[in-house]
Amino acid sequence: MTPAARTTCAPAARTASSADLTPLALTATALAPEGELGAWQVLNRERTIPHVVQRLETSGVMDNLRRLTGESDADYRGFNFADSDLHKTLEAIAWESARMPGEQPWEDFSQQATALLARVQQEDGYLYSHVQGHADQKPWRDMRWGHELYVLGHLVQAAIARERATGANDLMAVARRFADHAVREFGPAATRADGYCGHPEIETALVELYRHTGEVAYLDTVTAMVERRGTGALGTGPFESAYHQDHTPVRDAHEASGHAVRQLYLNAGLADLVAETADAPLTAALDAQWRSAHGTKEYVTGGMGSRHKDESFGDSFELPPDRAYAESCAAIASFQWNWRMLLATGKARHADAMERALYNGIASSTGVDGVRFFYSNPLQLRSGHDGSSEYSPSERLDWFACACCPPNLARLVASLGAYVATGTEATARLHLYGQGEIRIGSTTLTVSTEYPWDGRVEIAVAGPLTELALRIPAWSRDASLTVSGTVQHLDVDEDGYARVSVKNGATVVLDLPMPVDVLDPDPRVDAVRGCVALRRGPVVHCIEQADLPAGVTLESVSIDLTHEPRLGPAFASLRAGATVLGEAVVRPAEGLPLGTAHVRSSHRGERSGMLPGRIPLRAIPYARWANRAPGAMRVWIPVAEQE
Amino acid sequence: MTPAARTTCAPAARTASSADLTPLALTATALAPEGELGAWQVLNRERTIPHVVQRLETSGVMDNLRRLTGESDADYRGFNFADSDLHKTLEAIAWESARMPGEQPWEDFSQQATALLARVQQEDGYLYSHVQGHADQKPWRDMRWGHELYVLGHLVQAAIARERATGANDLMAVARRFADHAVREFGPAATRADGYCGHPEIETALVELYRHTGEVAYLDTVTAMVERRGTGALGTGPFESAYHQDHTPVRDAHEASGHAVRQLYLNAGLADLVAETADAPLTAALDAQWRSAHGTKEYVTGGMGSRHKDESFGDSFELPPDRAYAESCAAIASFQWNWRMLLATGKARHADAMERALYNGIASSTGVDGVRFFYSNPLQLRSGHDGSSEYSPSERLDWFACACCPPNLARLVASLGAYVATGTEATARLHLYGQGEIRIGSTTLTVSTEYPWDGRVEIAVAGPLTELALRIPAWSRDASLTVSGTVQHLDVDEDGYARVSVKNGATVVLDLPMPVDVLDPDPRVDAVRGCVALRRGPVVHCIEQADLPAGVTLESVSIDLTHEPRLGPAFASLRAGATVLGEAVVRPAEGLPLGTAHVRSSHRGERSGMLPGRIPLRAIPYARWANRAPGAMRVWIPVAEQE
Repeated sequence: MTPAARTTCAPAARTASSADLTPLALTATALAPEGELGAWQVLNRERTIPHVVQRLETSGVMDNLRRLTGESDADYRGFNFADSDLHKTLEAIAWESARMPGEQPWEDFSQQATALLARVQQEDGYLYSHVQGHADQKPWRDMRWGHELYVLGHLVQAAIARERATGANDLMAVARRFADHAVREFGPAATRADGYCGHPEIETALVELYRHTGEVAYLDTVTAMVERRGTGALGTGPFESAYHQDHTPVRDAHEASGHAVRQLYLNAGLADLVAETADAPLTAALDAQWRSAHGTKEYVTGGMGSRHKDESFGDSFELPPDRAYAESCAAIASFQWNWRMLLATGKARHADAMERALYNGIASSTGVDGVRFFYSNPLQLRSGHDGSSEYSPSERLDWFACACCPPNLARLVASLGAYVATGTEATARLHLYGQGEIRIGSTTLTVSTEYPWDGRVEIAVAGPLTELALRIPAWSRDASLTVSGTVQHLDVDEDGYARVSVKNGATVVLDLPMPVDVLDPDPRVDAVRGCVALRRGPVVHCIEQADLPAGVTLESVSIDLTHEPRLGPAFASLRAGATVLGEAVVRPAEGLPLGTAHVRSSHRGERSGMLPGRIPLRAIPYARWANRAPGAMRVWIPVAEQE
Repeated sequence: MTPAARTTCAPAARTASSADLTPLALTATALAPEGELGAWQVLNRERTIPHVVQRLETSGVMDNLRRLTGESDADYRGFNFADSDLHKTLEAIAWESARMPGEQPWEDFSQQATALLARVQQEDGYLYSHVQGHADQKPWRDMRWGHELYVLGHLVQAAIARERATGANDLMAVARRFADHAVREFGPAATRADGYCGHPEIETALVELYRHTGEVAYLDTVTAMVERRGTGALGTGPFESAYHQDHTPVRDAHEASGHAVRQLYLNAGLADLVAETADAPLTAALDAQWRSAHGTKEYVTGGMGSRHKDESFGDSFELPPDRAYAESCAAIASFQWNWRMLLATGKARHADAMERALYNGIASSTGVDGVRFFYSNPLQLRSGHDGSSEYSPSERLDWFACACCPPNLARLVASLGAYVATGTEATARLHLYGQGEIRIGSTTLTVSTEYPWDGRVEIAVAGPLTELALRIPAWSRDASLTVSGTVQHLDVDEDGYARVSVKNGATVVLDLPMPVDVLDPDPRVDAVRGCVALRRGPVVHCIEQADLPAGVTLESVSIDLTHEPRLGPAFASLRAGATVLGEAVVRPAEGLPLGTAHVRSSHRGERSGMLPGRIPLRAIPYARWANRAPGAMRVWIPVAEQE
């Protein structure tokens, strides 16, 4: 096979699996700042990216490099993978440059950082400030914890983004020197059994570098690394082998397990690999991974990773809301993996998963100010929570000792335009619905919608496009479709898309009604038994202490489902959003003894003496929680017992 | 104040707070091998202690010492606190020697190990094989992780036990040399701000050494250490300060938090300290700790520690059954702490807590073979559980990289006799009910009972005792009492004990009816909402996959409470135990889509098409789980919805 679409300005410019799944350049889409996605990109540009760039200085990431050239006398700071914070930021800046080509406020920064990287880079191409900055360390000695290939992966992705977005090849020259060094060290000819990285990431990057350059050695190196992985050659220690995705050969790893981000980055890389190699057993393993991750280990918010311990997946259906780790980077990784699965299969379930993560478990990680972040995204926070851990705080923080998430968010949001649609001159698909314009060949689609707050999506077609496929989300019921005012029979194909014939000048209106959905948990999810969640469209809601009357704690509230929850007024106090209103029963805070169990009969007796109160209940979009006062929150709300 | 009861052969020989709370020597109690507690002691003697002694060899603990005298050329193995495995084993052997003075099969081992420790000990008294065995380490350099005072604490406890049980002072000589070294280093005159241990344990040990020797410097050193703690002087790192109990000054630490074993060992030491110093603010802090730990953070099994991450307490009411860490050592520490609180206050709630832990969260840790152990004691294990972690296995393991639990169990079980009763010639209390004989002064109480499997306790009095106080457990209702056949008015005092006048030749019969209690969780414990637990007397039950028909998974079972659960036949296939029988509804395994949430209306529709099956449900004592085939288990059972 040969690489295709070398010039597509997108994170994953793979060969199209069908015409209507051809990746578009993110420059083809202009998300309007009035829409939810476009507004997020504005926040990212105006607040998040400047904040991240500034933090590269204050956290020591830049000085870690400068000290190697004599430009700084600071000590090394941060984890050994700190270089990756810079690389992800350079990628974010690159996509942002593509999105707003007329304005490039960080071009000087990118050029200077690239020049610094070039100065630090060794003659042989090696570039990893932690090892270079410590005399007692040598390259490639610790594949388990070393993160060198992980950092290279992010460097490669940044270089590809920069070249695709701006045409500048300065960073690419640095990245290729390091990548070529890695190919010599870890390519198919290498014999070392531990020739793969404890933290996957290089896989997706090198496949993309193969697509970008046509150099088959990059693809073959990924294949070699994937074949070696899972043999336990990385060694053992206090962490399980699954932490490093080294417990099972990749072809046999059918259950999502171990460190969630590592599993999901690996899966994204595997999806890239099989797109180029058509490896059937590996494709089957990936399908099993998807069924495991999304069928048994995904939160209703799209979050993944149930355990703080080892940042890992739990057993199937082990999905505690309070101790959900649900790392921001895991939701981003799931988004990236599902995009690659969508490009390969065209199945709407992958776009559904992207949407679920995007509007919930990813969106929740950034505050409305754009400069404060959650590392993990729990579905419940109790009154009196001990928020002293940065991985389980009561409020978003402006940075982290392990700062992987903020620049990861920046690069994802800057590149959102690339995930909205696919297609060619004749046929196209819309995957995510956002206000804005999409250019596909010589056709322009003008999308008008208040999605995800309203389900009406109007698409004006200008150009020669003849067929349009519209994703019908799994959450939707009673969708309807008109073309230029004529009601269409809604024919949802087996992929989950409604296909409609269009012509120049047509106006397509997709209506996805958005009632308030009251969700029962899967009965196998023990941790939220007896609760419901409120979802409207793709947006999961939560209740927050800030909306309760004084003296009522969130833990005393249950929802009375004899009153049907309904749409409330817009959540005007924050960025746009809708609220949901219902009725709640309030258990008196006093009256129950402490302790963890009561004999049922006596407990009942005690209960009967209580006079529960009633209050209206307001739920807000989960993604907007913790933007007012710190306090308790929950997505899964206990259902009040019938009196 | 002066030390008292120096010769009482017991773990905590404190000055009596009242005559009927005078600690007894464990030699005063002979628990019969036919009873539950006595049988456990036989298992401990015949299987557990020999296993532990053997493992000291194979795990490297003995060689870690021998290599320092040239008797071994092995490398150091294990964690830096490995010496404590030996010390705890020596303590277990000592108590066992007191219990069975005629037979001392491990006396040679104890003498030889003691002689080895004496050879290894430095001139200045220091004795810690990890530091001594590594040229790049120095004593007392790392109070955060060093564990030196922790190891000294266990050495002191072993030495006290050995001298009290056998009169031999060889180990005491070694322990005092090390303890005196520590007093010089960390006593009141020492100025180092970090003069306390990251892992509490020294506190309870040095207070007891003060009681044993009358040397006030040991008590003052504990006071000095306690006053320094909680200032953050141990430094920071990837673990929170609470992990090392260094986040808050001890007097202000009103919430049980951080590493559970460390918190509970500290609390045991504080209880010892205030018993000798009558420090009112510290006593108040301890009371607050108790309300926090037992009022909001205790599992129904007496287990503590909700999080695998950092082995720590969670927030109040964060009590997941599946991810319960509930370390065996935490339940043991809770038992030890509550014993000291009981001796101070006489409140039955402390004996209730001891009993709850003993028959559930502690008993569960040892298999019926006596040589396999759980490190953590979850209340739920799912079908398909990944049991690859030693901290969350599917079956008990015969040893651990961190082997704190097995020797801790051995020393507790060997010393059980010390916790059964307190008192003097005239007045006594029974705290734990077990078949056997108790000598109090010149009175012998002969206790006949099948407790905890039956609630009838018959006590024959032979001797001058005039008053007996019997604990009425918080779980019991409708208790009744006769003395020599005459029904007594059951007068439960404010401590929770029924006081009865007795005389020589009297037979007291306490009847504690043991219906099957169906427990509702506290509504604030989110993780088990919609479930009940089955408890009979103090024994918590569980359902296990091994009792279900082929093809029925535990996750598909819910309990039908329209049929009242009842006592079943004895659990004859294992050590004695009772079963509970009920009715279950089985949800068909197929028929529900994967995923974590369903819209309530559609889900209901789906459900109505199902035909649930019905099976009898058998519950076994939680402590006996995982002794047949590995498989799923749960304590909290979902309640079937009313049709």
